[in-house]
Amino acid sequence: MRVLGIDPGLRNMGWGVIDVAGSRLSHVANGICHSAGEVLADRLLSLHAQLTEIIRRFQPEAAAVEQTFVNKDAVATLKLGQARGIALLVPAQAGLLVGEYAPNAVKKTVVGVGHAAKAQIDHMVRLHLPGVEIAGADAADALAIAICHAHHLQSAGRLAAAVQRAQA
Amino acid sequence: MRVLGIDPGLRNMGWGVIDVAGSRLSHVANGICHSAGEVLADRLLSLHAQLTEIIRRFQPEAAAVEQTFVNKDAVATLKLGQARGIALLVPAQAGLLVGEYAPNAVKKTVVGVGHAAKAQIDHMVRLHLPGVEIAGADAADALAIAICHAHHLQSAGRLAAAVQRAQA
Repeated sequence: MRVLGIDPGLRNMGWGVIDVAGSRLSHVANGICHSAGEVLADRLLSLHAQLTEIIRRFQPEAAAVEQTFVNKDAVATLKLGQARGIALLVPAQAGLLVGEYAPNAVKKTVVGVGHAAKAQIDHMVRLHLPGVEIAGADAADALAIAICHAHHLQSAGRLAAAVQRAQA
Repeated sequence: MRVLGIDPGLRNMGWGVIDVAGSRLSHVANGICHSAGEVLADRLLSLHAQLTEIIRRFQPEAAAVEQTFVNKDAVATLKLGQARGIALLVPAQAGLLVGEYAPNAVKKTVVGVGHAAKAQIDHMVRLHLPGVEIAGADAADALAIAICHAHHLQSAGRLAAAVQRAQA
């Protein structure tokens, strides 16, 4: 199964695609969509076009978006929300179910603890996907989200299989 | 010129379309897009589809979105941001320039003062567009945004004409 992870942001939107076969993860691609300019609508349009192209090119079967930390800066939260709207919309337009994970859940899955530092996430992503060139911190976060989603889908799959067996 | 105004919201997204000919405004349509359900991505997808259909049906030539008041509730601000991302994206996808106005600017244009109450906006919208059936407060706000944008486009047009004349 191919999984897309997205770390939403208006200026820098990280993305990462991995393949999952059993317990084996392999890296497909990662990168950062950039948007700049004065007109907010055009920036969102650009992010929408870039994400749509990523999905067209890599054909993921599942997607997950970070449930962004709500900080105390309302202006920044509104900006983030606008970018996050696009990050959720594009996979849904492609017919994908979109998972959402809080940063702590991602950290707990990938690093083992909920309060891990950024450098630790980067390190564990490189350990899960050896030899990968990572486009930047936002791309590392996006790969971590994809790994987290893959893990949860597998757990859910195992649970569903166990329930089926129990009912058989 | 046909102008679309949007009052963004995740649960209720108000919209209003007016025609502007010289100083004459006339009502075309108004309504409220609703989204409900558990999955955020599906709600955004639904709002995107509804707004896209409104633009396809009424073919506006300009659009404006309220620059939403950033309140102190960060969770609400993030939700609003996500809906607002869709409200800005859809007209941009149709090739429209999207204006943004702060609530106070809308009130100042439509009512004459920046701190007008909701009921006063509703009243002035009905005065500008007599006999109109308004779908609700969010639709009234959207019509107010369209009126505000029409006013500013006209002022900009008059200014451009004056500059052209002065330079001739």
